[in-house]
Amino acid sequence: METSQQQKIYNFSAGPCILPQEVLKQAQDEMMNWHGSGVSVMEMSHRSKEFISIAEQAEKDFRELLNVPKNYQVFFFQGGASMQFSAIPYNILGDKTKVNYITTGSWSEQAQKEAKKLAQTVEAWQDHASKFTTVPNPETWNIDKECAYFHYCDNETIHGVEFNDFPFEKVEGMTLVSDMSSNIGTRPIDWEKYGVVYAGAQKNLGPAGVCIVVVREDLIGKQRPDTPILFDWKVFRDAPTKFHNTPACYPIYVTGLNLAHMKSQGLQHYQDLANKRASALYDYIDASEGYYTNPVEPKYRSRTNIPFRVKKDEKLETKFLAEAQKVGLIELKGHRSVGGCRASCYNAMPFEGVEALIEFMKKFREENP
Amino acid sequence: METSQQQKIYNFSAGPCILPQEVLKQAQDEMMNWHGSGVSVMEMSHRSKEFISIAEQAEKDFRELLNVPKNYQVFFFQGGASMQFSAIPYNILGDKTKVNYITTGSWSEQAQKEAKKLAQTVEAWQDHASKFTTVPNPETWNIDKECAYFHYCDNETIHGVEFNDFPFEKVEGMTLVSDMSSNIGTRPIDWEKYGVVYAGAQKNLGPAGVCIVVVREDLIGKQRPDTPILFDWKVFRDAPTKFHNTPACYPIYVTGLNLAHMKSQGLQHYQDLANKRASALYDYIDASEGYYTNPVEPKYRSRTNIPFRVKKDEKLETKFLAEAQKVGLIELKGHRSVGGCRASCYNAMPFEGVEALIEFMKKFREENP
Repeated sequence: METSQQQKIYNFSAGPCILPQEVLKQAQDEMMNWHGSGVSVMEMSHRSKEFISIAEQAEKDFRELLNVPKNYQVFFFQGGASMQFSAIPYNILGDKTKVNYITTGSWSEQAQKEAKKLAQTVEAWQDHASKFTTVPNPETWNIDKECAYFHYCDNETIHGVEFNDFPFEKVEGMTLVSDMSSNIGTRPIDWEKYGVVYAGAQKNLGPAGVCIVVVREDLIGKQRPDTPILFDWKVFRDAPTKFHNTPACYPIYVTGLNLAHMKSQGLQHYQDLANKRASALYDYIDASEGYYTNPVEPKYRSRTNIPFRVKKDEKLETKFLAEAQKVGLIELKGHRSVGGCRASCYNAMPFEGVEALIEFMKKFREENP
Repeated sequence: METSQQQKIYNFSAGPCILPQEVLKQAQDEMMNWHGSGVSVMEMSHRSKEFISIAEQAEKDFRELLNVPKNYQVFFFQGGASMQFSAIPYNILGDKTKVNYITTGSWSEQAQKEAKKLAQTVEAWQDHASKFTTVPNPETWNIDKECAYFHYCDNETIHGVEFNDFPFEKVEGMTLVSDMSSNIGTRPIDWEKYGVVYAGAQKNLGPAGVCIVVVREDLIGKQRPDTPILFDWKVFRDAPTKFHNTPACYPIYVTGLNLAHMKSQGLQHYQDLANKRASALYDYIDASEGYYTNPVEPKYRSRTNIPFRVKKDEKLETKFLAEAQKVGLIELKGHRSVGGCRASCYNAMPFEGVEALIEFMKKFREENP
């Protein structure tokens, strides 16, 4: 990130990620004195009417942006999606003993690992052979309707595998649970298909420190007696403003500013933008005659996390990353577990960022044939 | 908090709380572009060298401010002290079945309630008769050295009861665990007496979203096999930069700014200030001939959370709180569970704030005899 202050920066971080300049500017303007209150949002009691108005507005904007039905609760929790990996079985295992997971990458694998601490996990499929580059034909999935729920990760941040046509009919009658951390806000959600949707805010919705958890009302209240208090959705639902204890107030506030900004643009804008960014980048990669490669089966390519190799050559990739950084294209390194490069293009990434990346990729290829 | 922008505000919130103006100003100045990086701290990957430098500096300043020995790990967790209520028994129960708790107010009561989900809790004493206005003679405590640890809350935020001379000799040989959320940074800590010290940052150290947990190295690695991943100190200790998953980056950054500020003042400054603020306020209350009252036995009165009644008259208290707010003395309402008033005076509260409060209390008494 050592670049001159004048240079335009495009931040392709997989999270925490880019936020709109307007949102950061508003946070900056309001830092010392929020709306004439004389105090910073960071200094407000979470029980004050000022902070309650901030949290309520953030929830309202989230609901409107994504059209969340009234019979779903929306929570702003701490601990990220990883905390929900544990909280989900504690809350909705009920009197069942088994849970159904499909593993299509690193995050769904970690989610399942947590569930194993409480229940028998039935694997719908595990793609060790393909190294997480596809989703198998749903006809071959091992679906066990005796399980308390079916869990999947809608978009795998590290492997760049996204469900673009989840086969809802296959899990009909089961409670469907989905981690949407890295693609929430990029398309509509058909809520009535889901029991629980959760998403760390720090990719598409706000800064780190908030995990938005949406739960269908009837699933609340089935928690195990030994459920740790921070996991207990019922305790939070029944607490004033749904905060049992002090939440991450400032991250909720900035998430709220960003949700208001997103609402003003509309969900369709973000969906179109996600498609446009991803198409441009995959088209360029696929036309590069193997210079750049993405290993994922086209149908399941992520629109937000685009891993790619440069001639499958680690030395060349190191050079690519260093030169990209010099021209303000930052955080393009792939996750340490898979290597290579990755362009994460979340909601706040303008199309110009992807254009600049493609221009750089072209130039780099010419200079390093 | 509806006050004019010109008016000086003194924020007596029990948390989240007042922060130094210098710290907020620095955060404001750096909001759009941290140290020439071209990005906001909120946009940085938690694995970037920039954010790692921020987190490492925050830990270094905390260690220096409080003189933390090398054989203790310092963590910046999410979930507040409430998450540690659960995490502590998961991590250090080991092969024991019992844990020893002393209940001196609402927070130690909640901590014990969480421990009961995993272990048999032995109560050292429970002051239901006194409604949490004292600490009993340690000679009468029920101490069970077969327990995995002894837990106490060093300062009860709601009831205003503080341990000012913890009887370490009584629990010798046991692992001592203390919640210091509401008085950390107000005096030195004799680390070698402790196994675990934890504190939500949002009172004395920074904004909400961070809980600082200090653990003696040898206590890490005894976690139960079913420990949820976010509770598992070993997983975090062994992760890069001690972050298994995305932490609350921005709250850690602001906590770091504040710790650097505190270090420049020195711990003695805060200890003297805490004593001076508390003495002035208790002296005034005690000299008010029963107009203002604090129910706590003088020896155990909190230096940071000072609950008081106004003629034990709820109507008069409502008037007191409304008039105080008008002159910029905000968040003086007592916790909903105990009522009355409460002045929380954390590290960033200048002595002038307490002087202004005492002046107001005098005037109010004159006008409402």
